[in-house]
Amino acid sequence: MNDRKYEIIEHLTAMLGASGVLHESGDCERYRRDWAGHELGAPLAVVRPKNTEEVAQVVGFCHEHRVCMVPQGGHTGLVKGALPDSRYPEVVISLERMTRIRHIDPLNFSMAVDSGCILEQVKRVAEEHDCFFPLSLGAQGSCQIGGNIATNAGGVNVLRYGMMRELVLGMEVVLPNGEIWNGMQALHKDNRGYNLQQLFLGSEGTLGIVTGAVLKLSPRPEQSQTALLALPSVEAAVRLYAQARRACSDLLSAFELIPRQCMELAFEASPQLSDPLDTAYPHYVLLELDATGPVDLAGMLEHLLEASMESEVVLDGVLASSGQQADQLWLIRESMVEGQLLRGEHLRTDVSVPISAISRCVEQATAAVSAIEPKATTIAYGHIGDGNLHINVLPPADMAKDQLSHLLGRLETAIFEVVDRCDGSISAEHGIGRSKQEALLARSSETELKLLAGIKAVFDPHHLMGAGRILPSTGEAS
Amino acid sequence: MNDRKYEIIEHLTAMLGASGVLHESGDCERYRRDWAGHELGAPLAVVRPKNTEEVAQVVGFCHEHRVCMVPQGGHTGLVKGALPDSRYPEVVISLERMTRIRHIDPLNFSMAVDSGCILEQVKRVAEEHDCFFPLSLGAQGSCQIGGNIATNAGGVNVLRYGMMRELVLGMEVVLPNGEIWNGMQALHKDNRGYNLQQLFLGSEGTLGIVTGAVLKLSPRPEQSQTALLALPSVEAAVRLYAQARRACSDLLSAFELIPRQCMELAFEASPQLSDPLDTAYPHYVLLELDATGPVDLAGMLEHLLEASMESEVVLDGVLASSGQQADQLWLIRESMVEGQLLRGEHLRTDVSVPISAISRCVEQATAAVSAIEPKATTIAYGHIGDGNLHINVLPPADMAKDQLSHLLGRLETAIFEVVDRCDGSISAEHGIGRSKQEALLARSSETELKLLAGIKAVFDPHHLMGAGRILPSTGEAS
Repeated sequence: MNDRKYEIIEHLTAMLGASGVLHESGDCERYRRDWAGHELGAPLAVVRPKNTEEVAQVVGFCHEHRVCMVPQGGHTGLVKGALPDSRYPEVVISLERMTRIRHIDPLNFSMAVDSGCILEQVKRVAEEHDCFFPLSLGAQGSCQIGGNIATNAGGVNVLRYGMMRELVLGMEVVLPNGEIWNGMQALHKDNRGYNLQQLFLGSEGTLGIVTGAVLKLSPRPEQSQTALLALPSVEAAVRLYAQARRACSDLLSAFELIPRQCMELAFEASPQLSDPLDTAYPHYVLLELDATGPVDLAGMLEHLLEASMESEVVLDGVLASSGQQADQLWLIRESMVEGQLLRGEHLRTDVSVPISAISRCVEQATAAVSAIEPKATTIAYGHIGDGNLHINVLPPADMAKDQLSHLLGRLETAIFEVVDRCDGSISAEHGIGRSKQEALLARSSETELKLLAGIKAVFDPHHLMGAGRILPSTGEAS
Repeated sequence: MNDRKYEIIEHLTAMLGASGVLHESGDCERYRRDWAGHELGAPLAVVRPKNTEEVAQVVGFCHEHRVCMVPQGGHTGLVKGALPDSRYPEVVISLERMTRIRHIDPLNFSMAVDSGCILEQVKRVAEEHDCFFPLSLGAQGSCQIGGNIATNAGGVNVLRYGMMRELVLGMEVVLPNGEIWNGMQALHKDNRGYNLQQLFLGSEGTLGIVTGAVLKLSPRPEQSQTALLALPSVEAAVRLYAQARRACSDLLSAFELIPRQCMELAFEASPQLSDPLDTAYPHYVLLELDATGPVDLAGMLEHLLEASMESEVVLDGVLASSGQQADQLWLIRESMVEGQLLRGEHLRTDVSVPISAISRCVEQATAAVSAIEPKATTIAYGHIGDGNLHINVLPPADMAKDQLSHLLGRLETAIFEVVDRCDGSISAEHGIGRSKQEALLARSSETELKLLAGIKAVFDPHHLMGAGRILPSTGEAS
């Protein structure tokens, strides 16, 4: 193997120059690990192409020599999809040097970018042109557009603007055989046969490497209103959502369920935060309205609050009176995620169910967890306007490490079974990668798996790209 | 052949009963023809299954015996995709008896239906539950949901609510081998591997027969405002669009460009109509705002009108003061299509370009038509917020029929070349079917065609379903 490895590195270096190829263990270090600190093995090498042609050259070479490849973005994935594997040594193809804003066309509400652009950079450039790229994620300071496309990213604004699937007009992809597919059109409507673009969206780097994209922009919101409302139950939050959709036209851009335990976790992580309300309540909803033009958002929100308090859906609430106060409310949402991390290893899920089944799902999942481990704490929060819940479990603090991993596995299985009974999905926005593969396969019909494998074979018959992600690898690679 | 034909009919009749299978020439008559009166040949038979299982049985039988099939909805397609062909005799599978509303869940903003439901029926049922299914088309009184999905239908509300691609949460499909793919989830977010649903959307019945769908609903709009604004140029209309997006938040639901000639055509078709403005202007925009909740839409629209008149983007305008007056304005939009039909055979196109290129595209297309036939009239109208133009041409009235078809072909080629230069699409919303196949193939790279053919082969290796639509048939069917 070693001879072959050095031969490959030599060829790649001849293509990209020394700065384009990393292979020393220390240099490769940071490409082995994701945001959460997981790692699965060392890459054969890391290549850092500067443009689409270089990506195509590298991929063509790997294809010809049956070398496995894995595209890599900002290391913020949550399902171990972009981590190199040492079972079948992989060349990591990092898009980090492809960060060019290719073109912005405010009249067409579109923007063409390299796929290595950081989401935050894209959002900033859009704003400079009085436009808005609505994808909004915790990881936006480091995640890349290519990764957002590969995983069909979601986030807090899906409610109003859709997932990445609805935010991409065009795409450029290097296929697993090194050919370039040019679909960089900037068209808002296009009905020309099978939509390849939609197939790449959410394919997690297993059908090709996205090298460029045309993004769909919106007008930049000129005003926004944020509120934290207190509620007696999850059921009430679901009813409030239906009420809010009707009371606020299509101007609702976020609607986040936060249980009391999450509020406490936020206070643990950010001691400077204080409870925005005088009393503790079982649940909260953090919601945001955005608008351009002459709309009385504050009046709209007050109207909603009055009506929902009258019908006893909402018990109490605070409307942010300044941008700073709105930021404080959003800090609760961010800090509660950190608060969970501070508690150490715990179970994180990312499920979706019909909105009308949310309350039942949370209730049954909480009961299922308690039945297995009465001392565990179940917290269910998330983007409930999308039916998307993160039902997480904090284990008892005193549990031994070897017991813990077994427990978390059992809890996940139990929660997934509840989700199945609610006709839900075991992956709402994080994708499948390697972490959810087993759960996906167990829930897919033979008919479906045959189609998925057939599609993979059309694009990548030798299973060279992203092998073993989503579908098991049946590759012939070395 | 005839022996085989009767054997097939006998088998199908045994499956579906006599009322489920039509084969006499008179009975099959209306399944041979589309809305525009085109026909290509007689079907082998027409089957009318009552449920998904019957569809699966019929398809399974046809697959086993290598009989070609074509799914058929409401006969409103514009690219000859659903017409049976006599080159390779086809069984027409009509979904017209599958019209069940399976389930409506207002809390989840979703609705599960049989694919044979008429769009108007679906819209009505949604409204009865205080919800709204936004797809809005001229053909909505006869087109079926299955056809809307197969062709990824567009219409006047795409601007705000998206095409059919964005309005479907789940789907049930009978595959070309007779297996049923069950993807009837009612989830607003679901990231489980390759999205098959998106692949069926726009596949025009060549990858499977949609038998059921879960549709995404919105709150029912409580108020709307309609206006007809007069403008000096197409360029001004594009600038007005950018202005209106910003001045009207996301509440703009339609934005239609209408040139003066179209106004005249509307008056020809509907003599009861009168010019809503005192003077004739070169161009008009018909726009609509919809909202739920406390929004001052009229104020918003007046504000836009003032600002746009001040900047001389708009010259004059009328705001509908009642629902009846709004209907009158929309009648112009509908009548202008009829007005074109009254002029006899003419060229209809359905193209899209970046919004910023609309003005250039219209100018160059008009010039290209004039260069070929100075006496022809080019009219360009459409959903310009989507970059979607119908650049149609009315030929000189006195032209001989045999010259006419040659001329229309030349004009289409010339217009498509202009669209190519504007980086546009030769099919924005009507699809490919048979009519646009040649134009599609001429514009697709080898790389792309290989992928499209590969996908077709995964679903339908024998080219039995919708053979010859989108891609040329290379089938082995009898």
